[in-house]
Amino acid sequence: MVFIEGLPGVGNVGKLAAEHLIDELHAEKFADMYSKYFPPQVLVDDDGIVKLVRNEFYFIKHNKNLESDIIFLVGDYQGLTPEGQYKLSYEILKLVESYGVKLIITLGGYGLGRMIDKPKVLGAVSTSDLIQKMKDYGVVFQRGEPGSGIVGASGLLLGLGKIKNIDGVCLMGETSGYFADPKSAQEVLKVLTKILNITIDFSELEVKANQIDKITSQIRDIEPPKMKQKEEDLHYIG
Amino acid sequence: MVFIEGLPGVGNVGKLAAEHLIDELHAEKFADMYSKYFPPQVLVDDDGIVKLVRNEFYFIKHNKNLESDIIFLVGDYQGLTPEGQYKLSYEILKLVESYGVKLIITLGGYGLGRMIDKPKVLGAVSTSDLIQKMKDYGVVFQRGEPGSGIVGASGLLLGLGKIKNIDGVCLMGETSGYFADPKSAQEVLKVLTKILNITIDFSELEVKANQIDKITSQIRDIEPPKMKQKEEDLHYIG
Amino acid sequence: MVFIEGLPGVGNVGKLAAEHLIDELHAEKFADMYSKYFPPQVLVDDDGIVKLVRNEFYFIKHNKNLESDIIFLVGDYQGLTPEGQYKLSYEILKLVESYGVKLIITLGGYGLGRMIDKPKVLGAVSTSDLIQKMKDYGVVFQRGEPGSGIVGASGLLLGLGKIKNIDGVCLMGETSGYFADPKSAQEVLKVLTKILNITIDFSELEVKANQIDKITSQIRDIEPPKMKQKEEDLHYIG
Amino acid sequence: MVFIEGLPGVGNVGKLAAEHLIDELHAEKFADMYSKYFPPQVLVDDDGIVKLVRNEFYFIKHNKNLESDIIFLVGDYQGLTPEGQYKLSYEILKLVESYGVKLIITLGGYGLGRMIDKPKVLGAVSTSDLIQKMKDYGVVFQRGEPGSGIVGASGLLLGLGKIKNIDGVCLMGETSGYFADPKSAQEVLKVLTKILNITIDFSELEVKANQIDKITSQIRDIEPPKMKQKEEDLHYIG
Repeated sequence: MVFIEGLPGVGNVGKLAAEHLIDELHAEKFADMYSKYFPPQVLVDDDGIVKLVRNEFYFIKHNKNLESDIIFLVGDYQGLTPEGQYKLSYEILKLVESYGVKLIITLGGYGLGRMIDKPKVLGAVSTSDLIQKMKDYGVVFQRGEPGSGIVGASGLLLGLGKIKNIDGVCLMGETSGYFADPKSAQEVLKVLTKILNITIDFSELEVKANQIDKITSQIRDIEPPKMKQKEEDLHYIG
Repeated sequence: MVFIEGLPGVGNVGKLAAEHLIDELHAEKFADMYSKYFPPQVLVDDDGIVKLVRNEFYFIKHNKNLESDIIFLVGDYQGLTPEGQYKLSYEILKLVESYGVKLIITLGGYGLGRMIDKPKVLGAVSTSDLIQKMKDYGVVFQRGEPGSGIVGASGLLLGLGKIKNIDGVCLMGETSGYFADPKSAQEVLKVLTKILNITIDFSELEVKANQIDKITSQIRDIEPPKMKQKEEDLHYIG
Repeated sequence: MVFIEGLPGVGNVGKLAAEHLIDELHAEKFADMYSKYFPPQVLVDDDGIVKLVRNEFYFIKHNKNLESDIIFLVGDYQGLTPEGQYKLSYEILKLVESYGVKLIITLGGYGLGRMIDKPKVLGAVSTSDLIQKMKDYGVVFQRGEPGSGIVGASGLLLGLGKIKNIDGVCLMGETSGYFADPKSAQEVLKVLTKILNITIDFSELEVKANQIDKITSQIRDIEPPKMKQKEEDLHYIG
Repeated sequence: MVFIEGLPGVGNVGKLAAEHLIDELHAEKFADMYSKYFPPQVLVDDDGIVKLVRNEFYFIKHNKNLESDIIFLVGDYQGLTPEGQYKLSYEILKLVESYGVKLIITLGGYGLGRMIDKPKVLGAVSTSDLIQKMKDYGVVFQRGEPGSGIVGASGLLLGLGKIKNIDGVCLMGETSGYFADPKSAQEVLKVLTKILNITIDFSELEVKANQIDKITSQIRDIEPPKMKQKEEDLHYIG
């Protein structure tokens, strides 16, 4: 049993990746999580129907194409306060532990503060046994990165899981952090599908990535040549 | 049994509407709610008598002019923190549920950030069954509005009520959001009285609306002609 | 049994008044109150000895010069958060209620934001029965003051006491609010000693008031004549 | 049994001193403390392995060179909120009390906001009995310092310990507060080792102190002569 977390965060990389995988695998929702640690707010859909902000658990059973059962966690928000983050992560772990989870994979973005053409997927793990395995799947371990640690659910689930002796890995797609980044999500998913030994279709993420690319290149075309030059330089520095 | 919430919020539209209806129907107070989630403060009336800040529940039994029992919630403040908002809404729901409430109607303002002459009443509902009914009463369902969802008691009571399978609707009067807006409250009440199938007198709200109108038009007269022109343009743009 | 609260606040008026009265009556400390709602801090005295921040309860039994038993509450800080304020006031009330307190007198400052020569003592009460009595003692009830209510322990103790049917009055000495104001504290004490029907010596407060007066008049002398004029005008406007 | 606290704070003086002493005495870790009052974060080491932020307890038994058993507390963070600070200090005290601790020594920095060549070690104690003893070890008791009291774990552990009748002393090394200050930590350790009647090697702290000195003198060399002059003046004023 694998547990995959993709809550909102930098560039929404984890959320985009997890939601795409849920769609492609046709995983089914089995639980909603509401909490006083979320914003006191309902969202309103296009028809005018309200939905209390929440996190959602999805499940897909192993089958001929999928070696392991998977539980997914996605949602509208993370806990608002440090204490809320701890309490939610603790309850989430208790739940997935009760289902016999053996590996936690948390998905996130790694904000660079500059545009990036070929996002790498950085990794952090709860135990040294996982490092070589993850490197074989293309995960990059970069000394001193992420320097400030991993904040929020992606970090806490690994850290609390480690105390409970559940193995864990965090996959962080490099991203500018300026907007939702489907290209970075796709790179994360390429690694994740290798770990899970499955094949999925990326076309929907690619469509989204192309839309974003079009918008950002339009912005660049509006800029005067000099500025554009500068920005392109920037591309190849980092 | 209908439950109507009108706590302070944008333009105090919900509070003004609910308090006017309580007055007109001669509903009677049956409970005060105090909470550590309210500001640590007493209000002082004109005689110098203190009153701990609170929310108040009013009740009116059905009668020949009123088809349904109604519980009202009005008050000085909403909960100060997200956690407080959740805890208070949860306790409020438990109370009104124990009285057998079948429909929750929350009242609020929808801030436009500009002056508005003929405020519409926007709606959001907890179940699709209510959309057509509400449209028949004049409620407007506008795709993508409110884009940021509904924050606070008006949202939470619907969202938490939905989990408990209690139907709910939020009526939002358009308002500038710059001051208490009795005109918007009146529009909300016109819709609400149709839903409740009752007739009430609006004259007191109209008096208040005229006072506000006088103040805002005086402000406009003080402004130099050019500025005034601009502001009037603004009126008809939005 | 009377309960008198004088915690830090605007101009430290309540604290100065209560501490002076404790000294003059030789009331004795009978309890310390520590709380996680106070700042996480020790104070260090002139010898270098630490003291955890706290509130203190003092007691003086009725005697031939004093008609009633009195409990005093003074201290370094009020609760830091709204929730802390409520929890502390609630615990304080439970304690003094267990001793049979019949009247709560809370002391505070009423900040004017300008210098004031003859501070009045404003009042607010929990029950209309007390208004005339307090007026007879020289307390001023000013329609619409304090407009923003009474925030903190001075307000909450009255408001929560009212729910428990304990009579209460808040005495607010007018003060600039710019510095600790022993003159305002003295005015509050003049009223309070009339209520308690006792006579005390004010000389120590007067010494402190003279020191403050000297400092503020020196500041005025440094100012150029024109500024000085203006400030004196200010004195007589409010 | 002595309990020594060296959590992060001004100039990280306490943390540097405690960690150096743990290393030199080869004290062994016997407990980790995790808390919802810490930041919701994992740290990532150079290999990419995560560690939930925490505090750590170390222990060294008395031996021929060490008169007393010692428990150390060091860690990544202090509690984030006032309430968290109280709860953590309370739990820490309960733990060390259960081991029979007779003396609490908290280590910290005393920020001067200017460069300092020969940092003194200021003291604050929980009982007057300790003042002369500490003076004999070179601790400076300076009337009115620290004026704002001692905030955080170094203060709370003393203050709460005092209520439980456990003696305590806080040793504060003077520091600019601009950067981690191993020189100040060394001065604190000189006093602390006298109190504990042990001899330790300071060479590693001296290496760190020299590195910092080099950096700050380089910064001074870069500055234009006039600025440099000014800064040196500053050195000898305070």
